[in-house]
Parts: sequence; structure tokens; C-alpha cells
Amino acid sequence: MNRLFRTAAAAALLAVSPLSLAEDTFTLRLAQTWGPNSPILGETVEHMAEMAKTMSNGRLDIRIDPSNKHKAPFGIFDLVRNGQYDMGHTASYYYKGTIPNAMYFTTVPFGMIAPEQYAWFYHGEGMDLMQEVYEPYGLLSFPGGNTGNQMGGWFRDEINSLDDLKGIKMRTPGFAGEVMAELGVAVTNIPPGELYSSLERGTIDAVEWVGPALDFSMGFHQIAKNYYSGWQEPGAEVQFLINKGSWDKLPKDLQEILRVAMRTAAYDMYIQSTHESGVAWDRMKENYPDVTHRTFPPEVIEALRSATNKLLKEAAEGDELAARIIASQREYLRQVRQWTNISDKAYLDSVAGE
Amino acid sequence: MNRLFRTAAAAALLAVSPLSLAEDTFTLRLAQTWGPNSPILGETVEHMAEMAKTMSNGRLDIRIDPSNKHKAPFGIFDLVRNGQYDMGHTASYYYKGTIPNAMYFTTVPFGMIAPEQYAWFYHGEGMDLMQEVYEPYGLLSFPGGNTGNQMGGWFRDEINSLDDLKGIKMRTPGFAGEVMAELGVAVTNIPPGELYSSLERGTIDAVEWVGPALDFSMGFHQIAKNYYSGWQEPGAEVQFLINKGSWDKLPKDLQEILRVAMRTAAYDMYIQSTHESGVAWDRMKENYPDVTHRTFPPEVIEALRSATNKLLKEAAEGDELAARIIASQREYLRQVRQWTNISDKAYLDSVAGE
Repeated sequence: MNRLFRTAAAAALLAVSPLSLAEDTFTLRLAQTWGPNSPILGETVEHMAEMAKTMSNGRLDIRIDPSNKHKAPFGIFDLVRNGQYDMGHTASYYYKGTIPNAMYFTTVPFGMIAPEQYAWFYHGEGMDLMQEVYEPYGLLSFPGGNTGNQMGGWFRDEINSLDDLKGIKMRTPGFAGEVMAELGVAVTNIPPGELYSSLERGTIDAVEWVGPALDFSMGFHQIAKNYYSGWQEPGAEVQFLINKGSWDKLPKDLQEILRVAMRTAAYDMYIQSTHESGVAWDRMKENYPDVTHRTFPPEVIEALRSATNKLLKEAAEGDELAARIIASQREYLRQVRQWTNISDKAYLDSVAGE
Repeated sequence: MNRLFRTAAAAALLAVSPLSLAEDTFTLRLAQTWGPNSPILGETVEHMAEMAKTMSNGRLDIRIDPSNKHKAPFGIFDLVRNGQYDMGHTASYYYKGTIPNAMYFTTVPFGMIAPEQYAWFYHGEGMDLMQEVYEPYGLLSFPGGNTGNQMGGWFRDEINSLDDLKGIKMRTPGFAGEVMAELGVAVTNIPPGELYSSLERGTIDAVEWVGPALDFSMGFHQIAKNYYSGWQEPGAEVQFLINKGSWDKLPKDLQEILRVAMRTAAYDMYIQSTHESGVAWDRMKENYPDVTHRTFPPEVIEALRSATNKLLKEAAEGDELAARIIASQREYLRQVRQWTNISDKAYLDSVAGE
């Protein structure tokens, strides 16, 4: 501990106005996609706000509105852009209609797993490209938490071939839905609250949600007993959005406190998801032994991969920035996946089945 | 932004002494195992100190001494325990002679990979058990950065059987060295600066260091062309150590700033290691096409696994706390690995070879 600067600091403090900026309290209003008491996703936002508050000794006060407050769970982009809120917590691929290039910063089918994608964000071109996408809207975007590798979904019947997919009705949103449609799946989007009854009544035959940590509370396992590993969201990263005007008003120390609180909360969500998924999967095996874990057969994976590449190619042809994002992700994945394969994959293979 | 509290805050500030604790500067002296300008490991410490400084607006000043300053790279535990330094950055398994139970908090052969281990620290019993180990020494310990899955080492000759291992001379420290010794390997420890010449002269036939991100600067690939995937350090976590007396002197906001800066820096090191390993491995394939990546054959993995279990069993029998740590890690791994296998492993398997 060093008290050498004590007198100097106090003198400096008194020399300027006692209403010094350094002692101001800043309140940021945050709108989140998630409802109140939302496990993992909502907890991540609260955790971030709590860290920011303690680190700033109360000077940075982030007030969170869940979706029942602002009534626009999929309108966070506009709420923050228009300055109705200073910040948001959401997933960028919800806005693919308005800002198509935002989609790539959540996850891409057959793309990077969480640590690979964080490496692309922080050591590849990820953060720069993301900023290029959001700059025209007066927004800053930061990684906001990773769900880990999402499951491919709950299917009433086994999928043993491409034919088994044709004509089935499935809830799977976003880019993955477009890929599935290419394979003849009748893709629908249904509000979360109606998913269980839709599956029960046969309105849909399959549903993709997140993974063990969040799926069991939905009850799908009671109806659709085949639980497939994923291909479509290998590392889904949600997002903190900040209005640039709100950010610019913060002094440097509070900007850094906010940046670091968001960064830690995002990593922490990845680790919490890992934990909760492990717990939920373990309990499921005990409580619901009739649920079977499956992987799609190679011909299905191959067809999904081809359809993904076709759609990405089309997206790149129509948009110069999309082309650069897709190329950057592809090249980064090529490089980093070699390492993943000789490290974690080789290790997991060598100890599998023990 | 909210300036409502501005006047109140200023009034409160003037009501107490102008030499308020809230404006004090605190200096913490940190000793690290690593030398000056040490890539990844040393960068992690600087990164942590920089975040803490900016977030605290200069009030938390962490001064870093590399090993050439304090001359005790493997004496960090004592330097911090004795209060000669407030903090340290090191790896807990370096102190297995003095404090054997610290070892389990770096990594364990056939143990958890990085995200699994972070989940054990933060959502399992990891942090509590670690604190129980360090409490008697007046120390706090926090995760300090993960190297990712370490490689099994550079071997002059291929290892196709258990016989191929018998009698070879290998540098591999710590618990892994004890396991290798059980299989008939002549294990030696040699200072880093002499490793290359030892390998060149045939004093050793094989050497384990870290992984692509740090191995190539050592030059081993010029002599030993067989680069094996690992089993011994699936997620090596280095460590921040803090003297409890130094910690207790910090006000709550600076404690939280320090805690969050360490936590973020640790995660960031894992992501930086992922990035640098990918870059280094990709370049190696281009620059040194005669290096071959290999995995140990199943009979070798099986024997390493048996020897690991034997040594862990012996450690547990002799020490009640060791028994609890080992049991906690084993149970957590059983639970979380099922999830890793159906998520990342299933996904990586399904896209391998494309």
C-alpha cells in the first residue's frame, strides 16, 4: 500500500470543483431480450451490472428492464439505436431482417466453437468487423456471453437419412432455418410459450431450442425422445449493444469498468452454460432414460454443410462487407481448427469410452 | 446518465476528510515466475495490471518484478507468503514439495480441459477447496490464465508401444514425470536454457514443454520430429497468489477491481493461447513439413492412465484433503465430460476431415 500520493490527490480534488466529474454517478438503462428472472441469460446481465456497480463504488448504475417492461424482446436494436435505452442485451442474429451482417457475430452453422470464436473476436478481425457493421447506426457491440455448442434439436422420429428430413415440420430460427428449408424441412417459427403444445399436437415434429441447460424446463423431452447433437450454432454468442452517445459521456475509468465487466460476464456465461449443461444432462440420463442422444448421419451432415456453403456464397455475392466477414471467419477457422483437432479433440478421442 | 446524486455525493465527500480512503492510491508489488517480456504468461500479468490501473483511475498500481529482479522464479509462494511481495503470478504445481495439495489446481493428467476446469472452479467446489489449501499460509489464490491443452512432447523416435518408452530419457516435470517414471521412462528435469543442447547431444531423447504457441522458439522441432498430442496437462491453469494482509487493506471497490481484472486476464490468456497455438501450428506445417503430428497408441494411453490412477490413489490415502480434492475433480469430470462429448466432441467429430 502506498499513501505517498494521498495529499497530492486530495489537493487536486479540492483544486477542481467539488462537483468533479470523477464523483458523478452515471445511470445507464439497459433493455434485455429476456424476461424477468431468466436463467443464465438474464443472470449474465445482472452479474455484469453488479460487478460494474461494486468496481465503481456505486458510480456506475445499470438499471435493467426485462422484456415485460419494454414489450420489445426482438426490438432491442432499435431501442438502443434510438436512444430510448443506453444499452441492450440480445442476440445479433435476431435482427437479420434489418441489419443482415449482424448475424455472423452470433454464430454460423459449421463455424467456430466458443474458444475459437473468442480468439477470432479478440485476436483475429472479429471486433473490427463487428464495429464496421454497427458504426453506421451509432452503436457499439461487445460479446455478451456464449451458450456453448447448441444441440441440434428434439425429434419425434429418428433421422437416418435425408429422406427422413423431407417434409417434417420443425421450429428452428435464423440461418439454420434457411439451411433446413433447403433440405426440404418445413420450417416455422413459433413463440416460445407455444412450443410445447405445438409439439404435443403435432403442429411441429421437431424443435431446436438451446441445449440441456435450458431445454428441460420446456418439457420437449416428454414428447420427442431423440435428442440430436448440433451443427447449426457451434458457439452462439449473445451481445451487449451500447448507444455511442451514452458511451462517450462516461469518463475513461467507467468506460473501462463497463468494458471489463461485460467481457468477464460474457466469459462467465460460457462457463456457467458449460456447468448447467453438464448438470442437466447428467440428471436427464437418470430421470429420463428413454431419451436417446443421437448424431445426424454423415449424409445429412454433408447436405447441411453444402446448403450452408451455398447460402453463404449467395450472401457474399450480394454484399461486399458480408463477403469480407465470411472470408475472415473461414480463414480463421481453417487456422485455429487444426489446433483444436490436435489438442482438445485428440485428447477427448484418446480418453473416450473410458 | 444521471446527475441527480451529484450534489449529494459531493456533499458527502466534503463532509468526511478530504484525505478520504476513496482517493488513496494503493501500490501492490507482484513477483512473477516468468522473465521480462515473457510472451503470453508475462503479457497476462501486464494486461491485468493495466486493466486494474485504468478501472481504478490510477488508484490501484500493480508493480511487476520479473524473475531477473527477484531471482526466485520458483520461490513465488514463499515471497508472497512472507510478505516480501503482495502478489505473485506462478503455477501452483511448482510448489508440490512444500504444499503438495496445491498441485491439483494447475491441472491433472487425464483431467479436465479448460472450460470444464473453469466450471469446476466457479460452479463446482474448486474455489472453496483451493482456499482451504491456501488459508493456513495466509494466502488467497485465483485462476491466473490457461495455456489450453498442452502437447505430449517432442520425441526423436516414434512411440508405437510401451516398449518404445522404456529407458528413454525425457524432460517432463511434475506429476506427469512421476507417471512417466512408472512406465520406465528415465525422467529428468533440466533448466529451460539447456533443453535444446541436451536434446541435441542426446542427454535426453524427448522433451515436453507447452504447445505450439511457446515451443517453436525453443527449437526442439529441428531435432525431434515427432510431436505428440498430450494427456498430462489437459488445461494447465497458472495462478495469481495474494497475501491476505495486502488484500484486506484494499477498500471494497479496489478488491473487486482486482478480482475482476485477474478473472478477465485469466480467461484472456486461454483465448490468447488458443490464437497463438493456431497461428504457430499453421506456420509450422508450412515451414517444417518434416514434423509429424502423432498420438500415443491406445496401449500407451491405457498404461499412462493406470499409472495416473495408482499415484492419485496413493496421494488420497495419505492425505484427507487430497482425497477430497481428487474425489471432487473426478466427480465433476464425470458429470461435465458427458456434456463435452455430446456437444463439442460430437460436433468436431462430425466435421473432421472436411
